[in-house]
Amino acid sequence: MHSRREFLQKLAVSTASLPFLSSNFSLMEERPLRVAIMGLGGYGTRVAEAMQACKRARLVGVVSGTPSKIKAWQAKYNIPDKNCYNYETFDNIKDNPDIDVVYVITPNALHHDHVIRAAKAGKHVICEKPMALNAKEGQEMVDACEQAKVKLLVGYRMHFEPKTLEVVRLRKKNAFGKILFFQGLSGFEIGDPNQWRLNKELAGGGSLMDIGIYAINGARYMVGEEPIWVTAQETKTDKQKFKEGVDETIQFQMGFPSGALASCLSTYSMNNLDRFFLNGEEGFAELQPSTGYGPIEGRTHLGPLNQAHKTHQTIQMDEMAGIIMNGNKPVVPVDGAEGLRDLRIIDAIYRACQSGQKVSV
Amino acid sequence: MHSRREFLQKLAVSTASLPFLSSNFSLMEERPLRVAIMGLGGYGTRVAEAMQACKRARLVGVVSGTPSKIKAWQAKYNIPDKNCYNYETFDNIKDNPDIDVVYVITPNALHHDHVIRAAKAGKHVICEKPMALNAKEGQEMVDACEQAKVKLLVGYRMHFEPKTLEVVRLRKKNAFGKILFFQGLSGFEIGDPNQWRLNKELAGGGSLMDIGIYAINGARYMVGEEPIWVTAQETKTDKQKFKEGVDETIQFQMGFPSGALASCLSTYSMNNLDRFFLNGEEGFAELQPSTGYGPIEGRTHLGPLNQAHKTHQTIQMDEMAGIIMNGNKPVVPVDGAEGLRDLRIIDAIYRACQSGQKVSV
Repeated sequence: MHSRREFLQKLAVSTASLPFLSSNFSLMEERPLRVAIMGLGGYGTRVAEAMQACKRARLVGVVSGTPSKIKAWQAKYNIPDKNCYNYETFDNIKDNPDIDVVYVITPNALHHDHVIRAAKAGKHVICEKPMALNAKEGQEMVDACEQAKVKLLVGYRMHFEPKTLEVVRLRKKNAFGKILFFQGLSGFEIGDPNQWRLNKELAGGGSLMDIGIYAINGARYMVGEEPIWVTAQETKTDKQKFKEGVDETIQFQMGFPSGALASCLSTYSMNNLDRFFLNGEEGFAELQPSTGYGPIEGRTHLGPLNQAHKTHQTIQMDEMAGIIMNGNKPVVPVDGAEGLRDLRIIDAIYRACQSGQKVSV
Repeated sequence: MHSRREFLQKLAVSTASLPFLSSNFSLMEERPLRVAIMGLGGYGTRVAEAMQACKRARLVGVVSGTPSKIKAWQAKYNIPDKNCYNYETFDNIKDNPDIDVVYVITPNALHHDHVIRAAKAGKHVICEKPMALNAKEGQEMVDACEQAKVKLLVGYRMHFEPKTLEVVRLRKKNAFGKILFFQGLSGFEIGDPNQWRLNKELAGGGSLMDIGIYAINGARYMVGEEPIWVTAQETKTDKQKFKEGVDETIQFQMGFPSGALASCLSTYSMNNLDRFFLNGEEGFAELQPSTGYGPIEGRTHLGPLNQAHKTHQTIQMDEMAGIIMNGNKPVVPVDGAEGLRDLRIIDAIYRACQSGQKVSV
């Protein structure tokens, strides 16, 4: 397997300047997207495992500050030494022709720096959500990638999930009539109080940055509009676990140009949530669970949604390969502009929590 | 059937002063609650029909300003002339020993006056929800009924619904663990723009008075606590249909002493809502539909709720007969104090809509 992969890879590289071959030689069209994962934590591990089933993307490199992790990943995924970096050597990736894209899966506060460094090294970037700590940072990242002429995608895995896309398809063909309401309940009970997600310096906030963003993003792709205002209310039951600047629970509401409303909950203190509900004048859609890693379940007024489950990160990475390699256009955007829209809304929600007033987006 | 009923009724009246008979003569214990319905509109009609299946309550009188309606109801329900009143003659009901209770099902703004008149006539009162336009009115009604030594109940039909009570029972025995969250989505698309429910003078407000109150009340009996604060946001898409002071849609949030939160929606502009969701540290309950007239559907983390459906108003009136006649204590209170609590919350929600700030209840 390994040697076949290497053979195909070398073949792809060596024939990259011979496009006339590709129509006769189908292997050429199939050169996979060669991915380096930066940040070998829990989610990075999940992405790497899911990528083993990818048809168009392949894990070929790693970036980590922990030598033992690098070693373990090299052994598991057959990663050559030359494709391994730490945070000091990372900028040398510019000289590595065998890596197409860096998937940044580091703590939120580091995304800004890491994405800009990858862009400056001439690599495409996939950045895990939230793209950054705020819209200002996000804009700088978008600008840096534009300037470097590399693509910037955000790791929105739900944008490729089949039941989700079926609801989007139905909404676009007006199956629900005029859209009136979206509800997103996004949360889970967070464990270890010492993890980076509960450290303001690294996470940039609390549940809203990490899980509430699903409801924000879901509202936008389910309703099919951009919100024009938000209101929000923060509550905290545990000030030890959720320190200053780390939100435990935020309820927020959004208004859309058509008059549609969204009602959302973001929390780090309860399970059994994870529900999207879209309501229109002529029908509805419910996804529950709506964003968990396991199979999504859903129904509409027309009946249950039966699209087959496939590991989200596998589909995501295959589809992102198509976007980066072939310029494919996804049904729901996953580019930096998309990430930036969510960040602008996050900024507005935090402001609304402070003021108690309606905040324009 | 008619003559048997009349026979039993006469028997009951004639033996009321002979309590020693009742232990030997079981029919005596079964004298039904004799009800006059005031307000023969859509909901009064529904209650009357449901009462035909009651074992302990019987429709015996009517109060209406429309002679033709009185005539039709007399024919349908065998109501004698002496038990029929209009709003001018109504106070004479004090001299009618054959009516135990007046069920006030008139527009909201009239409840205050009608309940107080019924109390002054020495009759028990069931008042349809919302009990009044605001807590001040509600307090006056509670006081008037206390002074007159009559019982005041509010027409909360869900308080007797079997699946609802099963969730309350499970919550009381701690099956969900510490309660964290309640969600109530209550709404429907209201029709005729000329109905009294859309007239500020008669309705006292809009969707919140009529349908949002289910989410308020449901939050209280599902969580098992009284809220201490509310925040609320009003939105209006149709200012022609929903005039000044008539709310179309209000989102509101409530906080409870334990730290539990509620997230609720009240609306007159969409269907497909009607969902209660209770979330605890160790499990959840979902009722959907949660308050519609038809069968309630529900599940918990333990599985589906299978309690049999029975017409809500039939159970309600039978149980209310037990409360009024025998002093039974319902699992969830339905007295004036209960109605008053909802009104205080409604007052606070309207204030919070105005101020944008958190309002203490």
